Amino acid sequence: MKIKVSALATICLSALLLVGCGKTSNDSSSNNDNTTTTKKASVRTTGDATDDEYQGVIENGHYKTSKSRGVGVQQDSENMLNSKSFDVGMTDISKKFFSTKSYVFQEGQYLSKSTVQDWLGRKSKDNPDGLNPESNGNGSNRNPMYIQQIGEQDYMKDNDGKLSLAGMTIGIGMNRKDYYQKEEYGATYTQSISKEKMVEEGKIAAKKVLERVRKIDGVSNDTPIVIAMFEQAPNDSLVGGTFYAYAVSNSGTDLGDWKNLDLKNVTFPETSTNSVPNSNDEKNFENFKNKIQNFFPNLAGVTAQAQYDGKTLKSMNVSITTQFYSETEIISFTQYVAQAAQSYLPNKIPIDIQILGSDGKTQAFLSRDSGEGKFSSHVFTGF
Amino acid sequence: MKIKVSALATICLSALLLVGCGKTSNDSSSNNDNTTTTKKASVRTTGDATDDEYQGVIENGHYKTSKSRGVGVQQDSENMLNSKSFDVGMTDISKKFFSTKSYVFQEGQYLSKSTVQDWLGRKSKDNPDGLNPESNGNGSNRNPMYIQQIGEQDYMKDNDGKLSLAGMTIGIGMNRKDYYQKEEYGATYTQSISKEKMVEEGKIAAKKVLERVRKIDGVSNDTPIVIAMFEQAPNDSLVGGTFYAYAVSNSGTDLGDWKNLDLKNVTFPETSTNSVPNSNDEKNFENFKNKIQNFFPNLAGVTAQAQYDGKTLKSMNVSITTQFYSETEIISFTQYVAQAAQSYLPNKIPIDIQILGSDGKTQAFLSRDSGEGKFSSHVFTGF
Repeated sequence: MKIKVSALATICLSALLLVGCGKTSNDSSSNNDNTTTTKKASVRTTGDATDDEYQGVIENGHYKTSKSRGVGVQQDSENMLNSKSFDVGMTDISKKFFSTKSYVFQEGQYLSKSTVQDWLGRKSKDNPDGLNPESNGNGSNRNPMYIQQIGEQDYMKDNDGKLSLAGMTIGIGMNRKDYYQKEEYGATYTQSISKEKMVEEGKIAAKKVLERVRKIDGVSNDTPIVIAMFEQAPNDSLVGGTFYAYAVSNSGTDLGDWKNLDLKNVTFPETSTNSVPNSNDEKNFENFKNKIQNFFPNLAGVTAQAQYDGKTLKSMNVSITTQFYSETEIISFTQYVAQAAQSYLPNKIPIDIQILGSDGKTQAFLSRDSGEGKFSSHVFTGF
Repeated sequence: MKIKVSALATICLSALLLVGCGKTSNDSSSNNDNTTTTKKASVRTTGDATDDEYQGVIENGHYKTSKSRGVGVQQDSENMLNSKSFDVGMTDISKKFFSTKSYVFQEGQYLSKSTVQDWLGRKSKDNPDGLNPESNGNGSNRNPMYIQQIGEQDYMKDNDGKLSLAGMTIGIGMNRKDYYQKEEYGATYTQSISKEKMVEEGKIAAKKVLERVRKIDGVSNDTPIVIAMFEQAPNDSLVGGTFYAYAVSNSGTDLGDWKNLDLKNVTFPETSTNSVPNSNDEKNFENFKNKIQNFFPNLAGVTAQAQYDGKTLKSMNVSITTQFYSETEIISFTQYVAQAAQSYLPNKIPIDIQILGSDGKTQAFLSRDSGEGKFSSHVFTGF
């Protein structure tokens, strides 16, 4: 665990924690964050967790949440997995341009909730900024909703304890399926959108978004802005969508060339509607699954989510669910899973394994980073 | 991660895994455990997870589960936390006598389900082995049920690839509350049992159990048997019970001296009915909680379970529940919790921290072993 931002920021954080500690020892029920509100604001970050993650911004003891916080959550019909994939994928692309060592992550502060809501709506007299096409009713030639979500991430530089905007990533989530009801609470109809049409509409939206973001107060003409295009997974998918392209505007409204990505999220085991790009991986997973599922007299369920870049498996999250009859069974099972994973699951990629009880609660957890030889494991015991 | 049993056992396990792998590459849907059933059985263990845990026994590719598996689970009115505490505590006491390096753990194979059920029942004409007193009705002088659960753990030595019983721990769970209904599905009545009475009845039961276990086929007269006495937590407790005493019989039916334990499980924050032995720990926890709960505009819930030995905090499990609006919030929060835990929570004891979303699912996890300076953390992302 290394310190990644300037020593100054770290010292500030430590100071804050110590001040808070001294203060609240006398009054343990009060909120000690108030002790800093009268001070001149200075840069504080969330500290360091692992080496390749950004630090976040703390202001007056509170996390600086996104100005459009919760917009995605209101779209409750949407596949929630898309929301996770969107956030994680956007951060992954950002790391190509804004190193975790030099930049501090700030939740989007330039697009407000109402702005994002307006942009995600249909264009109309009342909503001239709507990025989705005007409504033409819900007939057979309905204009689909192409744009599903918009996210903003800010990348800050620390100049003598003051953060300034030094980069931005805007993610745009594009639909391949347009879901709609003809009447409220009625049946849901689905219209497919071709890959080509999605890409085309995405480019149009990206250009508009870039032009608008450049005009926002505080965004300078030469702040690098990454626009990242995300293909939403269908609502019934067991994995979230993936980013399919990105482009960088180094200044003005010039977007530069589009760089395509070939990411695919899959589930294991393979099914007729969910194919895995590399059949060897499927075989290895089946071997692992067979090894695991008959460990106890009662069967264990073994599934995985994984991400491919082309034909190459990049990382894997395994879930194992079984009924345990004692804590010692959990400990033994966890040891066994570590051995079997070592033997059967692909080498040199990061793998997470969660072991869940029949109540759905996490009982144990194993992980191996890409560079590590062995799995580390942890059993969640209780008192 | 060190190898703890003999190299032979490890090689056997590896061989098993490799054979299985080669076999099932051709037929990935079959269960490759069958490939070993015709072989002469040899010692296989669950492998190694961490340094201070026992390896378990695998037989023909299946875990050797307890002969009385599931007896505890049927007692559905019982506090399930007692069951976890019972298993973990029994293993902890066993480690004092049977080192994890020299012994292999085997789930109890000598007490069958029906035996345990009979012993846990009331003594009667039909059930002469019942350890609980004969029924005298459910009036004001009802004979309470003193004995709630019995568990067995076997500790094996590996002699040239063959395991033999080299030690045993029997746990006996004693009630401080006797719960009963006067009619089926009726109101539950409670009768308290004094600590003194519990200890007295426990000693009587321990003596009987030892005499009976010594007579079981396969248990020799000089196999060390540890008898560990557990005080059940009340059904409404937020923590499980603790072991209050143990004794060792090195041979025959002589039980040796009782060694008392002063363990206590508590929850943080302290309440009027749940006091914490050391008020400094409570202050530190409150400071940590205050630091954490206002990180987001929405409050986070922060609680902990902990175990004391006398006035000394031994270990702590923290649960933090909050609503997250993005994956980046989870990452930032996890980093912040690591810093705050480092500053506020007690040093030099093992601490687990689980971060849960509002849906109750584990989103991130931090832990620090007793010897470690910093918390390691892991965020559960998805695809």
